[in-house]
Amino acid sequence: MASRDIRIILAGPRGKMGTAARDLIAHTAHFSLVACVDHKPQTETHFSDGDVPIFTDADRCFSEVEADVLIDLTTPQAAKTHLEIALDHHVRPVIGTTGFTDEEIEQLRAKAESKSLGAMIVPNFAIGAVLMMKFSQMAARYFDDVEIIERHHDRKLDAPSGTALKTANLISDVRGEKKQGHQNESETLEGARGGQVEGMPIHSVRLPGLVAHQEVVFGGSGQTLTIRHDSIDRGSFMPGVKLAVETVMATKTLIYGLEQVIE
Amino acid sequence: MASRDIRIILAGPRGKMGTAARDLIAHTAHFSLVACVDHKPQTETHFSDGDVPIFTDADRCFSEVEADVLIDLTTPQAAKTHLEIALDHHVRPVIGTTGFTDEEIEQLRAKAESKSLGAMIVPNFAIGAVLMMKFSQMAARYFDDVEIIERHHDRKLDAPSGTALKTANLISDVRGEKKQGHQNESETLEGARGGQVEGMPIHSVRLPGLVAHQEVVFGGSGQTLTIRHDSIDRGSFMPGVKLAVETVMATKTLIYGLEQVIE
Amino acid sequence: MASRDIRIILAGPRGKMGTAARDLIAHTAHFSLVACVDHKPQTETHFSDGDVPIFTDADRCFSEVEADVLIDLTTPQAAKTHLEIALDHHVRPVIGTTGFTDEEIEQLRAKAESKSLGAMIVPNFAIGAVLMMKFSQMAARYFDDVEIIERHHDRKLDAPSGTALKTANLISDVRGEKKQGHQNESETLEGARGGQVEGMPIHSVRLPGLVAHQEVVFGGSGQTLTIRHDSIDRGSFMPGVKLAVETVMATKTLIYGLEQVIE
Amino acid sequence: MASRDIRIILAGPRGKMGTAARDLIAHTAHFSLVACVDHKPQTETHFSDGDVPIFTDADRCFSEVEADVLIDLTTPQAAKTHLEIALDHHVRPVIGTTGFTDEEIEQLRAKAESKSLGAMIVPNFAIGAVLMMKFSQMAARYFDDVEIIERHHDRKLDAPSGTALKTANLISDVRGEKKQGHQNESETLEGARGGQVEGMPIHSVRLPGLVAHQEVVFGGSGQTLTIRHDSIDRGSFMPGVKLAVETVMATKTLIYGLEQVIE
Repeated sequence: MASRDIRIILAGPRGKMGTAARDLIAHTAHFSLVACVDHKPQTETHFSDGDVPIFTDADRCFSEVEADVLIDLTTPQAAKTHLEIALDHHVRPVIGTTGFTDEEIEQLRAKAESKSLGAMIVPNFAIGAVLMMKFSQMAARYFDDVEIIERHHDRKLDAPSGTALKTANLISDVRGEKKQGHQNESETLEGARGGQVEGMPIHSVRLPGLVAHQEVVFGGSGQTLTIRHDSIDRGSFMPGVKLAVETVMATKTLIYGLEQVIE
Repeated sequence: MASRDIRIILAGPRGKMGTAARDLIAHTAHFSLVACVDHKPQTETHFSDGDVPIFTDADRCFSEVEADVLIDLTTPQAAKTHLEIALDHHVRPVIGTTGFTDEEIEQLRAKAESKSLGAMIVPNFAIGAVLMMKFSQMAARYFDDVEIIERHHDRKLDAPSGTALKTANLISDVRGEKKQGHQNESETLEGARGGQVEGMPIHSVRLPGLVAHQEVVFGGSGQTLTIRHDSIDRGSFMPGVKLAVETVMATKTLIYGLEQVIE
Repeated sequence: MASRDIRIILAGPRGKMGTAARDLIAHTAHFSLVACVDHKPQTETHFSDGDVPIFTDADRCFSEVEADVLIDLTTPQAAKTHLEIALDHHVRPVIGTTGFTDEEIEQLRAKAESKSLGAMIVPNFAIGAVLMMKFSQMAARYFDDVEIIERHHDRKLDAPSGTALKTANLISDVRGEKKQGHQNESETLEGARGGQVEGMPIHSVRLPGLVAHQEVVFGGSGQTLTIRHDSIDRGSFMPGVKLAVETVMATKTLIYGLEQVIE
Repeated sequence: MASRDIRIILAGPRGKMGTAARDLIAHTAHFSLVACVDHKPQTETHFSDGDVPIFTDADRCFSEVEADVLIDLTTPQAAKTHLEIALDHHVRPVIGTTGFTDEEIEQLRAKAESKSLGAMIVPNFAIGAVLMMKFSQMAARYFDDVEIIERHHDRKLDAPSGTALKTANLISDVRGEKKQGHQNESETLEGARGGQVEGMPIHSVRLPGLVAHQEVVFGGSGQTLTIRHDSIDRGSFMPGVKLAVETVMATKTLIYGLEQVIE
């Protein structure tokens, strides 16, 4: 391990995200995995990363192992505990979960700042999706009309997707409500014009052979501008994890959401 | 005019379609325009194709001018009259309109066959759209799941488009009804899953900057197959007009729809 | 096992294709797996499908087990041997490999016909890709101008893909050579206009995050027609395997290629 | 005319852009056309906008008519003269042309600032295209691999398009050179992998039925992010003209390029 490596503790190393994160760390030159926190004891954990110790007790882990960053891919409840323990041990937390209230975030930010430590809470690590949402919000300043088409495999239960709703909300923060289409348009087939968020239609396609895709189409006189994200596996989250790790090393406050650090 | 040219009478030469048809004839080596039928007298018709006579009386036109084919781009009512006059004068009609009953079509077919003349009634000359529908019907034999996304400018009043509905009907002729998506799926936003034809969702997008577009997306395990047609102007109808003219020269019956002659 | 089930012997049950084929058989109501042929002995083969016997000796397998169809997903050399043994035992072969000469195919067809047995050799089971190629050839009769854009992951060594070249050849069988684009066009950046097959440009995109995709874009006056296939895993081959099994049960000759049985 | 209207002089009112600009002014509530500068005398100019005077002498126009903004859609040479005259008469210039040297731009900026006047030189008014380029440059910070596919009608002489080259340069400003694709990849068909700018492939499609389109595809592990612009007529330039007019009213310096004012 080179002296300038970023030493990482990984909590939740066995799930899909955790497996991808171990892969990321192994393939990033200046990242080093120094310990794992797992709720199952080491003997039941089947992965082997050489000499990396696995702890079921987070407190003991942070006491015994020196680290720079915690990557936490566990549950909202466990993550909250780990976040505080990490800050207490002067380790910068990167938390990949939702479920924090605004008040909790403010308290944790104050704590991070009092210790001059970077920290991130990241509900969505998919940097491509985050960029799609950011670009959509920017484009909405110049185009009044927009529709969202999201496509997922046909085992998905809900429509529309959370990402589509979040995108629509980000756009309507900028442009307000607008009834789109012809003012006298009518549906000869109910539902054809999609679901509406502040006058903005969302269309949800569900087919076998799809994974997770979204296109945001802006229309103006004589032109359309389309922003599209296609995701086919968990690997798509890793550039976002990497960016978060690098961000907490360079800042001294708590940041909520990847969109805050994308320029 | 070479001896093997196809001599064409054009009815309805001034509309968008008529203008495009004159263009087609002018740019096709073996097509010759020999007369026009127009409900306005020649002095009010502002186009000039050299010595081509313009008639307001269709009967007189067919009596005075020798021709091989009539291209009729007028109204349903005028077209019916012109079709019969053309057959009476041994001219093969290509009629670009809807509004014929099944019974009328049968009678006209009998008349065409009794005179050994080719004839076509073509509700949609857009050969790309006709191919899209034909391919969609073929693909439906191998893929059970399909959704249709059609996109038009935002001055369009009705949703979905006629082409989308016709495509859905052609597909359901092959596969029957099927409830698609997850059997327990639910819309958190009403209309998100589109309008349904026999369980097949149709989504209608309306934006400025669009013209007329449709994609038919078939999904199967691990793959999707997409057939898409984009149309930006009336020029898109001309290859279909050309095919119809060549078809009536080569057959001795009445054919309804371009899809019958596409192999 | 119902009396009308199709009894299947699977050769090559352990590869990616073989694993997908076992899945297909397990999930198809009227398909039954009755034996496997594998070059590794049973003790080394780690899959378990209940009582299905695994043979390293194909001859013995066909002698001891009664079956309707052989699905062979082995190598060209092994497949040739298995095909003949299957016909000798009155089992209809479905062979998923290339490498047969025209002469060999003729001899095998004669043998299949003399025994009144269906047989198929299928170089490409991806029915979506086969449909894309078939539709492209059909569309080429009505559109003179076409370009192919194929996209694959960036670990692919060769460009363009075999499917793109085969598609181009099928199109040029119909339309012949045509120099496309402006007759005086020039590349200010060499290669921008792609590679040319009979005047038809092919563009190869290679990026991480892609799997295997191709779009064939036809252009005509005022319109474009696009046929696109996206494949994300081996599951995409299974509808083709199923179609081949059903085809050999219904025919009495040898058929080469799925495109021959798609209507 | 309301007291708060923006009073506009339009130079070059008869070309495609000029016609679209007159349309824009007529349909924008707070824009008023107060005069035109045209190199043809008024008697030869066939458009009629009520009482708007047309001048062949720019000096006389600016002396006789009070205005807030000049929109100039003429040639580089005429535009340079008009820009200076406008500033001399305290009118804010919006110049839609290229051909200024860096030195000229600096001098003009100094002049605009000395008079506390806003001014813009805008080589590309297509706001959708400008956004596509801006988003592409932003995305390049998070994705190392990218290919550009631009599509135009087949009457275009050069490949690739200027927009594609400019996009590639903006991206390489951020990421530097990178050889993409498999390190040992080979073309079995020369040109298949496109033209390369700093290791970034550009593919140029030319087909009838297309107008002007570009997609920029970024690839990363498990995902792709695509930014696409489709332009079908000159109307696509008008939102950019409008933004430029509003910008020169609100600033006191010279700005080069729409990308500088898009946030």
